[in-house]
Amino acid sequence: MTTVTVFSKPKLRRPILLVGLPGVGNIGRVAVDYLVKELKAKSFAQLYSEHFFPFVMLQDNYKIHLLKNEFYYYKAKTAKARDLILLVGDSQSLSPNGHYEIGEKILDLADAFKVKEIITIGGLATGEIEDASHVLGAINDEALLKKYKKYGIDFNAGEKVGYIVGAAGLLPGLGRERGMDGICLLGETSGFPIVTDPRAAEMVLKVLIKILGIKVNMSRLDERVKEMESFIKKVETLQRKALQQLSKEEHGAPEEKEQLRYIG
Amino acid sequence: MTTVTVFSKPKLRRPILLVGLPGVGNIGRVAVDYLVKELKAKSFAQLYSEHFFPFVMLQDNYKIHLLKNEFYYYKAKTAKARDLILLVGDSQSLSPNGHYEIGEKILDLADAFKVKEIITIGGLATGEIEDASHVLGAINDEALLKKYKKYGIDFNAGEKVGYIVGAAGLLPGLGRERGMDGICLLGETSGFPIVTDPRAAEMVLKVLIKILGIKVNMSRLDERVKEMESFIKKVETLQRKALQQLSKEEHGAPEEKEQLRYIG
Amino acid sequence: MTTVTVFSKPKLRRPILLVGLPGVGNIGRVAVDYLVKELKAKSFAQLYSEHFFPFVMLQDNYKIHLLKNEFYYYKAKTAKARDLILLVGDSQSLSPNGHYEIGEKILDLADAFKVKEIITIGGLATGEIEDASHVLGAINDEALLKKYKKYGIDFNAGEKVGYIVGAAGLLPGLGRERGMDGICLLGETSGFPIVTDPRAAEMVLKVLIKILGIKVNMSRLDERVKEMESFIKKVETLQRKALQQLSKEEHGAPEEKEQLRYIG
Amino acid sequence: MTTVTVFSKPKLRRPILLVGLPGVGNIGRVAVDYLVKELKAKSFAQLYSEHFFPFVMLQDNYKIHLLKNEFYYYKAKTAKARDLILLVGDSQSLSPNGHYEIGEKILDLADAFKVKEIITIGGLATGEIEDASHVLGAINDEALLKKYKKYGIDFNAGEKVGYIVGAAGLLPGLGRERGMDGICLLGETSGFPIVTDPRAAEMVLKVLIKILGIKVNMSRLDERVKEMESFIKKVETLQRKALQQLSKEEHGAPEEKEQLRYIG
Repeated sequence: MTTVTVFSKPKLRRPILLVGLPGVGNIGRVAVDYLVKELKAKSFAQLYSEHFFPFVMLQDNYKIHLLKNEFYYYKAKTAKARDLILLVGDSQSLSPNGHYEIGEKILDLADAFKVKEIITIGGLATGEIEDASHVLGAINDEALLKKYKKYGIDFNAGEKVGYIVGAAGLLPGLGRERGMDGICLLGETSGFPIVTDPRAAEMVLKVLIKILGIKVNMSRLDERVKEMESFIKKVETLQRKALQQLSKEEHGAPEEKEQLRYIG
Repeated sequence: MTTVTVFSKPKLRRPILLVGLPGVGNIGRVAVDYLVKELKAKSFAQLYSEHFFPFVMLQDNYKIHLLKNEFYYYKAKTAKARDLILLVGDSQSLSPNGHYEIGEKILDLADAFKVKEIITIGGLATGEIEDASHVLGAINDEALLKKYKKYGIDFNAGEKVGYIVGAAGLLPGLGRERGMDGICLLGETSGFPIVTDPRAAEMVLKVLIKILGIKVNMSRLDERVKEMESFIKKVETLQRKALQQLSKEEHGAPEEKEQLRYIG
Repeated sequence: MTTVTVFSKPKLRRPILLVGLPGVGNIGRVAVDYLVKELKAKSFAQLYSEHFFPFVMLQDNYKIHLLKNEFYYYKAKTAKARDLILLVGDSQSLSPNGHYEIGEKILDLADAFKVKEIITIGGLATGEIEDASHVLGAINDEALLKKYKKYGIDFNAGEKVGYIVGAAGLLPGLGRERGMDGICLLGETSGFPIVTDPRAAEMVLKVLIKILGIKVNMSRLDERVKEMESFIKKVETLQRKALQQLSKEEHGAPEEKEQLRYIG
Repeated sequence: MTTVTVFSKPKLRRPILLVGLPGVGNIGRVAVDYLVKELKAKSFAQLYSEHFFPFVMLQDNYKIHLLKNEFYYYKAKTAKARDLILLVGDSQSLSPNGHYEIGEKILDLADAFKVKEIITIGGLATGEIEDASHVLGAINDEALLKKYKKYGIDFNAGEKVGYIVGAAGLLPGLGRERGMDGICLLGETSGFPIVTDPRAAEMVLKVLIKILGIKVNMSRLDERVKEMESFIKKVETLQRKALQQLSKEEHGAPEEKEQLRYIG
């Protein structure tokens, strides 16, 4: 059970699907969320899934927040730019098989809007604190190499990483089967601190802006990242805690810890 | 596979769905079960699920009892009070994704009776033995704050807990998507003894009675809790045992323990 | 995916469903299998499920055997006796939720033959080597107590065990929801050796024969148990091995053990 | 969700389904892949599944590759030979129940092409470094013994192994239920090095060629194995890594390792 709800059906011309879900350094999420805010993109659909964690979050201490992925749209202001569908969200799948189900649901929505291009954003943890870092890329069709090479993307990702886990890789992978071109942009990040890496997100954003042919004021990024960080940190801490609890339950936790079983 | 069976279709006027499933201190279960008994609410539907534990309990040593959640209804006796659907049960989902499936099934039934308001009850383990304790609240819509504030509910739950696991949180969360208002009431409890916390249940009941505008004799609570406790304790002990066995099976238990594999 | 295939549709008069699946001491399986042979019951349907282990067994060293549960029927020879559907098999569900799915499929078949009574057979591991032992019983309806008490069944199972895991308990539990009367007979067994306990099976068979009003020659039991034992032992050893492998895989086994991953 | 896509519908006369999926020594995969190349078999269908790992691989450092199983066909050139459907692929099911689902989907496709015979290829790890080794066989119908014995297949597999895990065993097992004859050929292999065992693959290929009545130049095998080896090694290393990560997540990995959670 993965539920997609479409609130309104904007008319979009050849939209690009831009995906930023939680991951290493939360680079994708931060970058796409920033674009949503700066471009004043409008929410038009959402997705939630039984493959997300079975809890709700408390916002502002008392507001129940169901874990969701949200779809926004942006209509291009210039002839050069392209209409966009932007996807950001709280969670990826908890279970391995959920990644495929959620991926197909996202692509069903994309198909309904005649999306022919996908750009996903992720992070690549190097484990080192670096000064400068690259934006790496992986494409779902040989022919795209020429198109994207001019943007200064490093296409040797495979040397550092042999695979891409989750939505950032599966969406272009599954999208190919529907005739969609796709690229995954990976921002290099040290991997710590775990929460967010605004510098890596900035790097990716700069490449992205060139690809999309849009103008975006980058000066508010640090401020936005700070705003997001506390929420993202909370989700991550909670997910880790929840994973530990679920794991303890499954492994027969000793009685004294059992009390944490259901908060609620 | 989650099966809901409706035995009779009572005519209810704007009923509130009141949910008390197993959890910390079993506060919700105890409180709603007490209301069912005191209000002489009538059973009209039930739910069981493949996401419950794959065992039956033995009641009175020889009666096979399938794990269930049961729906009761109560027709308001005064103009001020409201019709109620009360949900109590033996179990929540064993698997993470089952929580969503079961939640949606419960809400499907609620929808069929035109429920527009949900109240779930849970517990919040503080890990400390306290003298006095609060009833905390979380709501699924900003506008509800005013409505519920007058009942002395503490709306700073988020300071102590960032999330609500399972039905107590998911039902108001998923209910919002169907246009249902929802509140989760959390009774603070030490967390030990694990079985039931009648004092926390009493506190929540007092708030609940005010919200619902009903009169309930509280003097039989201790007695009822004692009656329930042995059954609840049994289910919990068994679930823990079963979890341990299932876990051992999955992890390749040594031969000498294998004998416990199926009792039956 | 649980697949039931019906090869032929025998005309049966008020048949009783008799279930003996793998479990503690394999008492149910041994007892029902013995009845199948002695009564020359005829195979008419089978079931296999994705919830069984993902392997095939090799019989006689080279014959591929898919794990199955098989249905047999027996037509009563006397007015006093009843027609029977006998279910025996290689496996129960590997996953917790599979028990419910498989249980419902078995009951769907039973419903199609208008079964109104279920008898399941299981074992109860005492952990002690005992001289004499009981047959314990659990029923799915209070009214059955009188009917079954005369057969010398001990209805205090709940003192020794609070629950019944798997098909032996779930079938009468779920059957109640369909209006079927059900009893679970548990043969007490030490629990070791783990393979089969022919004495406990004999005890249960003696009670069963009285209930069913049939005549069965018990003299071939030991011989049959010996024949079955090697096969049952093989399945159990393999399941344990397979569980260990699956578990190692899931937990990231070290490379040198990885070689066992797929035999085939 | 397991998706089979058929690109073209070749007209095949009584085709045999020949299956080589990943496993011990990758014998099946290597052997069938070699036949695909040497016979210039044509791709006509593919399968991917939510039961595969939730990642994409990077080929040549930048090309996104969705994990797949691919179907090829070969039309017999002589009257003696038979048309073939050859199945090779990157992955088997990650979850136990996925093996059954994927197996049934493969057989659905086989049924659509009126396949009446299945040959699967797997490996049998002996744990010893041996000089000479056998090709062992297991069949899904007694009557096949005579047909296959003449090819020098050792039909005492069951002495060394009691079961066959995954597709190599399940396809003939499930195929029997559809009236398909099936044999599983197991190449004996030491089990180390884990990647590929070209000698065992060669042995199996020699038997296979005789069975199929085709001519295949074996001189390019070593070369092909070398080409395949790096890709196969990559998939296996990644799957192991991914398994470890998934396992860590499920068991509440410590914070400092969490950074690896999503690459992408």
